[in-house]
Formats: sequence, C-alpha cells, structure tokens
Amino acid sequence: MTAELIIRLATPRDHDQIWEILRPVFRSGETYAIDPEIPRATALAYWCGSDRTVWVTVRDQQVIGTYYLRTNQPAGGCHVCNCGFVTNPKAQGQGVARAMVTHALGAARAAGYSAMQFNFVVSTNERALGLWKRVGFDIVGRVPGAFQHPRLGFVDALVLYRRL
Amino acid sequence: MTAELIIRLATPRDHDQIWEILRPVFRSGETYAIDPEIPRATALAYWCGSDRTVWVTVRDQQVIGTYYLRTNQPAGGCHVCNCGFVTNPKAQGQGVARAMVTHALGAARAAGYSAMQFNFVVSTNERALGLWKRVGFDIVGRVPGAFQHPRLGFVDALVLYRRL
Repeated sequence: MTAELIIRLATPRDHDQIWEILRPVFRSGETYAIDPEIPRATALAYWCGSDRTVWVTVRDQQVIGTYYLRTNQPAGGCHVCNCGFVTNPKAQGQGVARAMVTHALGAARAAGYSAMQFNFVVSTNERALGLWKRVGFDIVGRVPGAFQHPRLGFVDALVLYRRL
Repeated sequence: MTAELIIRLATPRDHDQIWEILRPVFRSGETYAIDPEIPRATALAYWCGSDRTVWVTVRDQQVIGTYYLRTNQPAGGCHVCNCGFVTNPKAQGQGVARAMVTHALGAARAAGYSAMQFNFVVSTNERALGLWKRVGFDIVGRVPGAFQHPRLGFVDALVLYRRL
C-alpha cells in the first residue's frame, strides 16, 4: 500500500531536500534553461524567491516533489500565474507531478488568478507535456530552436496556457 | 532637414532623459506589463539592469528613444536575445523605432546571438507589431487575454521571433 501524498507549503527546513530534488534535474540541463552547474544557494534562491509561493510534496516524511507558484507578469499581466514543477526522478511514474499540478490549479484559483501559463517548456520534455495536455493546457506558442538540449541540439520551446 | 540620428550606448548621465521617455509609456499602462505608478528609480533599475545593454537614440543632443538588449533565457536558452524599445511619443512616426530595431539586430548579431524573441507584445500595440513584421519577425505565440489593457480590457499577448 502506497503511503499518502501530502502537499504543504515549504519551509526553510525543507531546503536540503528541495535541493536534492532540484539538483539532478538542473544538472541534466535537459528541461530547464538553468545553468547545469548552478550552485545550491543560487538554485534555492531562484526556486524559493520572494516573488513565489513554494510547495513540497511529502510521502513517508520524504520530500519527493516541489513546485512554485508566482505571478507571471506584473500590472496588466498579473491575472496570469506561472508554475515550475520538479519531481524526484526516483519517484517518477507514481502520480506525483499530477498531484502537484492539480494542487497548483486549485491554489492558483484560490489566489484569484484566472489563467496559468508556462513560458518555456522544452518540446522534448514529453513526460511533462503529456501531463500538461491531460490536465487541460493548450500549446499557444512554439519558439523555433529556442533551447539547446545537451544531447539533442537545438529544440523548440513551447508556451502552454490554461484558463482557470 | 532632419538632423542625424545617433544610436550610442547609454550612460548614467542619460538617465534623466531615459526616464522622460519611459514615463509616459509606462504611465499609460497600454503596452508594457509594468505598474503604471512605477517610481523613477525602479523604472531605471529595470530598464538599465545589470543583465542588459542599454542604448539611446539621440538627435540634436536630445534622447528620443532607448532600447535594451539582453539574453532571454540563461544556459540552454542563451543563444536567443530579447529587447525592449521605447520612443518618445513626440518623436513617433519619424523612423526612430525602425532605426533602433535595425541597430538592435546588428548589435545582437555582433554579440553572437542567433535569434531575437519578444516575450510579451500586447496585441493591440499595432504600431509596434507592424514594424516588427516589416523587419522580419514572426508571431510564434498568442496567449489569450494575457494583458489587461486599461481601456480595452483583456487582450492577447503575442510572442515574436526572428532568426538572426
């Protein structure tokens, strides 16, 4: 029997475990436009920046996923939010990302946003793209060759959008 | 006879004149997702941030336009640049914006970028859109209702792209 997933707000005491999740994803350089050599402190300052709300997904007292929610553009764009999601590679295929995006859609509605936008989804990130489409996101933009993938070379970056 | 346009790097001594150009554009809230009430210091810190190169267009020793050039995304996205352009409303229709974007395409090539992307062009900004299309940009994304225009309500935001 699988233990329950709990999604709660992150605290500074989660930073070690958040970094353990971010590190392999950022180090791979395959899905985020972030320096693969980014140091721990810089990565945490980015992920947990003061402009965002950070959540963690916990199972058996282990943080196995994290996401942030932020306003995508200020002023005239402030009704649209943006999120980033990372799941521990060891916990993939267990519904963690799906639980997080479902939670994020609710948290975004509760915060008063009317839409969610992802600005830069690497087109070869098929696992993520499949999930975003299943939960109602549309591809509304495609920037040709905007991401240099470490193994595949220049690939497109996509803009995804979902009304809330 | 119209005096020559000179486009040169901005210096701190240009800040007063840059602000005079930014102020009416930001205050209108019609084309940038920036708080219309943004204070001078915050606007200059944004426009002249350390991540960007800032240029001014000068005619008769008056700054009548300014643009910045920056990397749009780090790491795997760092071959694509981004710019913002503002022309003094009193100097519109005189080729200032066209001179700036032509200059920017050259400066971007010289800096080694292989493409230029505008992330958030308000779809009702027809003057700018007409120019971007004339100089070779394609609309590669359209985010529905992503911008709340102060007079027109929710309008689309566009993503524009041009290979260099």
